[in-house]
Amino acid sequence: MRIAGYQGSRRGGRARSFGRMCVAILIVKLGGSVITDKRRRFSVRRKVLKRLAGEIYASGVRPVVVHGGGSFGHPLASRYRIAEGYRSREQLVGASLTHSAMVRLNEEVVSAFRDRGLPAFPVQPSACMRVSDGRIVSVELGPIRKIIDLKMVPVFYGDVVPDTKRGLSILSGDQITSRLAIELGARRVIMAADVDGIFTADPKVHRKAKLLETVTPKTAPRIGRIKDVDVTGGMGNKLAELIELAKNGVEGQIVNALKPGLLLEAIRGKRRIGTIVRAG
Amino acid sequence: MRIAGYQGSRRGGRARSFGRMCVAILIVKLGGSVITDKRRRFSVRRKVLKRLAGEIYASGVRPVVVHGGGSFGHPLASRYRIAEGYRSREQLVGASLTHSAMVRLNEEVVSAFRDRGLPAFPVQPSACMRVSDGRIVSVELGPIRKIIDLKMVPVFYGDVVPDTKRGLSILSGDQITSRLAIELGARRVIMAADVDGIFTADPKVHRKAKLLETVTPKTAPRIGRIKDVDVTGGMGNKLAELIELAKNGVEGQIVNALKPGLLLEAIRGKRRIGTIVRAG
Repeated sequence: MRIAGYQGSRRGGRARSFGRMCVAILIVKLGGSVITDKRRRFSVRRKVLKRLAGEIYASGVRPVVVHGGGSFGHPLASRYRIAEGYRSREQLVGASLTHSAMVRLNEEVVSAFRDRGLPAFPVQPSACMRVSDGRIVSVELGPIRKIIDLKMVPVFYGDVVPDTKRGLSILSGDQITSRLAIELGARRVIMAADVDGIFTADPKVHRKAKLLETVTPKTAPRIGRIKDVDVTGGMGNKLAELIELAKNGVEGQIVNALKPGLLLEAIRGKRRIGTIVRAG
Repeated sequence: MRIAGYQGSRRGGRARSFGRMCVAILIVKLGGSVITDKRRRFSVRRKVLKRLAGEIYASGVRPVVVHGGGSFGHPLASRYRIAEGYRSREQLVGASLTHSAMVRLNEEVVSAFRDRGLPAFPVQPSACMRVSDGRIVSVELGPIRKIIDLKMVPVFYGDVVPDTKRGLSILSGDQITSRLAIELGARRVIMAADVDGIFTADPKVHRKAKLLETVTPKTAPRIGRIKDVDVTGGMGNKLAELIELAKNGVEGQIVNALKPGLLLEAIRGKRRIGTIVRAG
């Protein structure tokens, strides 16, 4: 059995067998700055979210979805300095508050998906991922595989997590996306961002900055330099995760999801949108 | 290191070492009919919840907490017949809705705990437990142990779960409690209920019904008969789980948490409240 509308992009791709099914898994990461307004705390962009749910539904694909924290997770995580690790009891309350904020945002996403006919099911990263020193060391895949097998849409989110080394740390949606792609044997990852892709320099600062249509691990070091001037929501981190994926044979694509229709086209297999990150 | 206020009940008890710590783990199950009003959908008993959070805080103990579904999970789970397993696509939306309702109730509990100074952290059963044919077959303990190690209060809840055999099923808070007690090497389990304990017959029907102070696996078969006449929120299931625990050396206690102070006294080690279920 194959997911409708996804066959076109499967040639040569890895597929994983779950029970009787053989599914090419696609992971879609919805950027926090796409689904929330980062300037205003706890503000969901409901119209955008509704549209994106519609685009995913229309594609016929049932992807694994991961979303970022945007104006929900980040302000609290930074106020309680969760990323620095566990240092004081006050941070425990902070961790609890940060997680709760992410759960609220996740419920918005899940509910928007449900309203568009997608049976979404949240998966709490801090419950199923072992983390050490800020990196995922293992993932409990049992429930996730069964959720996919049922043709539900598992929805992960950036989260505050217990960390065996630091006590507490932050798992970015990007890292979760990257790890899940490897663990689930995904063939493609699409990052729905609020920018057009990877540029030669920060397009908001440098007028002559050019969009890169393709990035490979070989061309990446040069691109690496843009990290420092990149203020468009951690594009450097995104790129680093996608480069790692490319080395593992997973193709990445960054598209501007604030532009209607681009996510749908990317899911349908169109490669000439945004930036493609691939092996070579 | 030991948890303050819990030493008195530790004699002879099992303890589990997490990192440098040695902690006797207590599990408190908050009944769904205690923290919600079962007669009205989605109604939280906020006053009761606040008081119980206060009692747990006052005890000095940081237990592992599990809560039931009450008027949040049950109506939806039963409307979509989740307990019968996966049969139709409509149930996928139902599973999503049921889980979301439980997440909402869980957020109420976590937030009430936080307000009373308890750093509560939710743990999603459907993300960390593998389930087959309605029974938990394994639990990802890594994050849970670290949450306990940090002296946070992990808060689990009855949940709709992916099931490798049935597709979907319902995990009761009672089963989660029982399994966690074994997995974490807990010494005691306290079930905060809306009745005084186990009776010789249903006290709402039989005026002469007597409260049993102690139940053991040996006396249980006789008690087993009350299952059929028991309409007080699945007391039969609770008893079955507690009998299994007793056989494994975990002491159970059922107390009426609608009566102020009883949960606190039980946590502090008082045994002459409600019903004790133990090995012999």
